[in-house]
Amino acid sequence: MPRYRLLVEYDGRAFHGYQAQAGLPSVQEAIEDAIFAFSGERIRLQAAGRTDTGVHATGQVLHADLQKTWPARTVSEALNAHLVPQPVAILEASVAEGDWHARFSATGRRYLYRILNRRAPPALDQGRVWYVKKPLDTGAMLEAAQALIGTHDFTTFRDVGCQAKSPLRTLDEARVERVGEEVHLHFAARSFLHRQVRSMTGSLAEVGAGRWRREDLIAALEARDRTACGPVAPAHGLYLIGVAYD
Amino acid sequence: MPRYRLLVEYDGRAFHGYQAQAGLPSVQEAIEDAIFAFSGERIRLQAAGRTDTGVHATGQVLHADLQKTWPARTVSEALNAHLVPQPVAILEASVAEGDWHARFSATGRRYLYRILNRRAPPALDQGRVWYVKKPLDTGAMLEAAQALIGTHDFTTFRDVGCQAKSPLRTLDEARVERVGEEVHLHFAARSFLHRQVRSMTGSLAEVGAGRWRREDLIAALEARDRTACGPVAPAHGLYLIGVAYD
Repeated sequence: MPRYRLLVEYDGRAFHGYQAQAGLPSVQEAIEDAIFAFSGERIRLQAAGRTDTGVHATGQVLHADLQKTWPARTVSEALNAHLVPQPVAILEASVAEGDWHARFSATGRRYLYRILNRRAPPALDQGRVWYVKKPLDTGAMLEAAQALIGTHDFTTFRDVGCQAKSPLRTLDEARVERVGEEVHLHFAARSFLHRQVRSMTGSLAEVGAGRWRREDLIAALEARDRTACGPVAPAHGLYLIGVAYD
Repeated sequence: MPRYRLLVEYDGRAFHGYQAQAGLPSVQEAIEDAIFAFSGERIRLQAAGRTDTGVHATGQVLHADLQKTWPARTVSEALNAHLVPQPVAILEASVAEGDWHARFSATGRRYLYRILNRRAPPALDQGRVWYVKKPLDTGAMLEAAQALIGTHDFTTFRDVGCQAKSPLRTLDEARVERVGEEVHLHFAARSFLHRQVRSMTGSLAEVGAGRWRREDLIAALEARDRTACGPVAPAHGLYLIGVAYD
């Protein structure tokens, strides 16, 4: 029974998140339906990251266990054909080795958060960036972001509904850069808590707007209290851009 | 009576082209309605380029003659507020000098054509790129494109419905480059014939795919015959990115 590894891109606007939910369109259901249409097999996909409603991906990783063996190229081509016109694309399919698992073998996740930081609202990038009109001080954001790197109790930056047993996470990277009219925030960790990236981004935007100082961000982190978090940044600026495996 | 110059971005998917047409959504009507909502004045906009259905803009230039004088910043802010949620944004407004005219004073137009050239179809960029699966030889495209530069009778690359009196145009720039998974074609001229950029792009894609040689493109140009044109590239990969004024 071969296991196929799928590298996937999707536009989060079209879905109520990655995970299948009865009666609501999801990325998982779209791909599972395409697998059924192509192979006749009803399977359950496993995913490296369960992205929320509106969150995009350019590097989601999934796996599918199929009874029948197909050339990997056939799998990606057939799935893409069946996914039309939904905004989901299989960028690559390959046969996984040994007991590799899309979720449990993952050793790192990378997210990008895009802020459109200009006077005019987005036209071409509606639903793909967070529009922040007030000029953001990216230097101040970058400096403050360094306080988040390392192992911390991220209770402040975790959704109250987060199912993870521990609020401890190790943030390996928190980078802020201006790219034309946009501010990009890059985050990397072995794993993230629910809404952690959007919570950290919203609080860093407070620093960028001058409403918080770096010390306020540190105090928020150290409070280990969800109510100390800044406004949570919206889902539609967030992209799962990559998953690392050893 | 002040004349306001407007720099405009829009997503062409939402409109039946720039120009107002009874009963169909257009960029022109959207902005004229926003002007009326803001100022109470019913005016007719003038545009540097009349983009087709599905064609996008990041640098369209318009002008609006208003009876009342407003600070330019007020005009852009008020129009953006009234344009929500339509995918049109006024990037900048300024008061025009002398007899400056958005269309007649323009001395150059720049277009970008985006081709997504990878195996997988677009997910995040659906409706914003032309998806060409077969790998394109951008070197061959760039070399062939040079034959289009200069003053030519572009009858081959002009829509049969084109209203321009002369088929002669002077192409100042035709550049082809690979940008990640995309192929970008840049064109600049004082003005273009109807569907000229999409016609040239479609024919250059034939060269990139190896179905045409450079000599075939030259023969097509020299034929001065619309039927000699390659397949016209779709509207949704095209962007009006800038207008030049002396």
